[in-house]
Amino acid sequence: MTAHSDTPARGPGSGKRERILAAAEEVFAARGFFQARVSEIAKAAGVADGTIYLYFKSKDDLLISLFEDRMELVNNELETALEGAEGAPAKLRCFIRAYCDLASRHPNTAEVITIELRQSSKFMKEYDNPRFADFLRRLASIIEQGQQEGTLHSEIPAPIAARSLFGALDELLLAWVLGGGEKFDIVRAADWVGDMILKGLEARRNQ
Amino acid sequence: MTAHSDTPARGPGSGKRERILAAAEEVFAARGFFQARVSEIAKAAGVADGTIYLYFKSKDDLLISLFEDRMELVNNELETALEGAEGAPAKLRCFIRAYCDLASRHPNTAEVITIELRQSSKFMKEYDNPRFADFLRRLASIIEQGQQEGTLHSEIPAPIAARSLFGALDELLLAWVLGGGEKFDIVRAADWVGDMILKGLEARRNQ
Repeated sequence: MTAHSDTPARGPGSGKRERILAAAEEVFAARGFFQARVSEIAKAAGVADGTIYLYFKSKDDLLISLFEDRMELVNNELETALEGAEGAPAKLRCFIRAYCDLASRHPNTAEVITIELRQSSKFMKEYDNPRFADFLRRLASIIEQGQQEGTLHSEIPAPIAARSLFGALDELLLAWVLGGGEKFDIVRAADWVGDMILKGLEARRNQ
Repeated sequence: MTAHSDTPARGPGSGKRERILAAAEEVFAARGFFQARVSEIAKAAGVADGTIYLYFKSKDDLLISLFEDRMELVNNELETALEGAEGAPAKLRCFIRAYCDLASRHPNTAEVITIELRQSSKFMKEYDNPRFADFLRRLASIIEQGQQEGTLHSEIPAPIAARSLFGALDELLLAWVLGGGEKFDIVRAADWVGDMILKGLEARRNQ
């Protein structure tokens, strides 16, 4: 369960909730989760400090809610990107490209996902992370589909392949975010890594 | 430059430094970097609080020094593991297996590398991370060697391949550490991922 499910978040005042989340994303990316103060987030959102606590229980809850919200966006965009793709290899390519393209258009979100989230022990150790689980399940189910249709080999369990593919992309995004988005072209790098992983997963005729 | 280079760290009293690092690793893994107190580390090491500051400037410096020390261990063990391997594919397999095997034997080190380090913004944003750079360079140079000898294809730049391979292993270790080391066999998973990446990097006759 998310901690904000009984807040006014989904009611008519949800524009304010969105504004607080956007402000939190900006402040976390600029100052880091631990250095960020709730009062700075309130100021950036143009609300009183106390208003934040009507929507979120704590700074940890704000980070978790932000992650849930952004992963929902990611999952929705990925679903749309996958609509035209036929077969597991094309779907995997689409998935990788759409994920990195999304990150390149929302660098603050990429920073919060790759860096700030690991800064909340609560997030890392106590929260079971349902939207991220959805994301991994979606990725694993594409790989599983390929293993069933025979386009991908079955030597590696699909959840392990999915998790390591996510890790490869997450590390690339981390390097890209830490380099200020200027060290390399993240979408091009995603294509290279996508090719490498796809070749690694493809079924081979002579095996 | 490392912050501890002018401390008594490398002198005759270095047994105490080792003890402080071992205690820090244990306390960071159990309590998390931000929750850990220098006084707890001192107690676990059996030294006075003030003694820690003879060796390390701050808790951040302690984390960075711990990382440097452990990455030196990792780099040395990897060098030994690679000694018998001939050719890039065999070397890559050795590297992946030795890295994950090392992590499975030192779960606290794995936890500090995968989780706690990302909790220090100083580490993530201000520190240039020389031993980790060595680690990545070593991995990239094996891939480059394979590209030159023709056993691996050259479609992906070696540093991008190295970074994403590290990311895949780091994410696997993270899942393993968060699952208390019990969710799956990390060395077996490393073999699967190693196979997948190697197949993805192998040069193909019909291309």
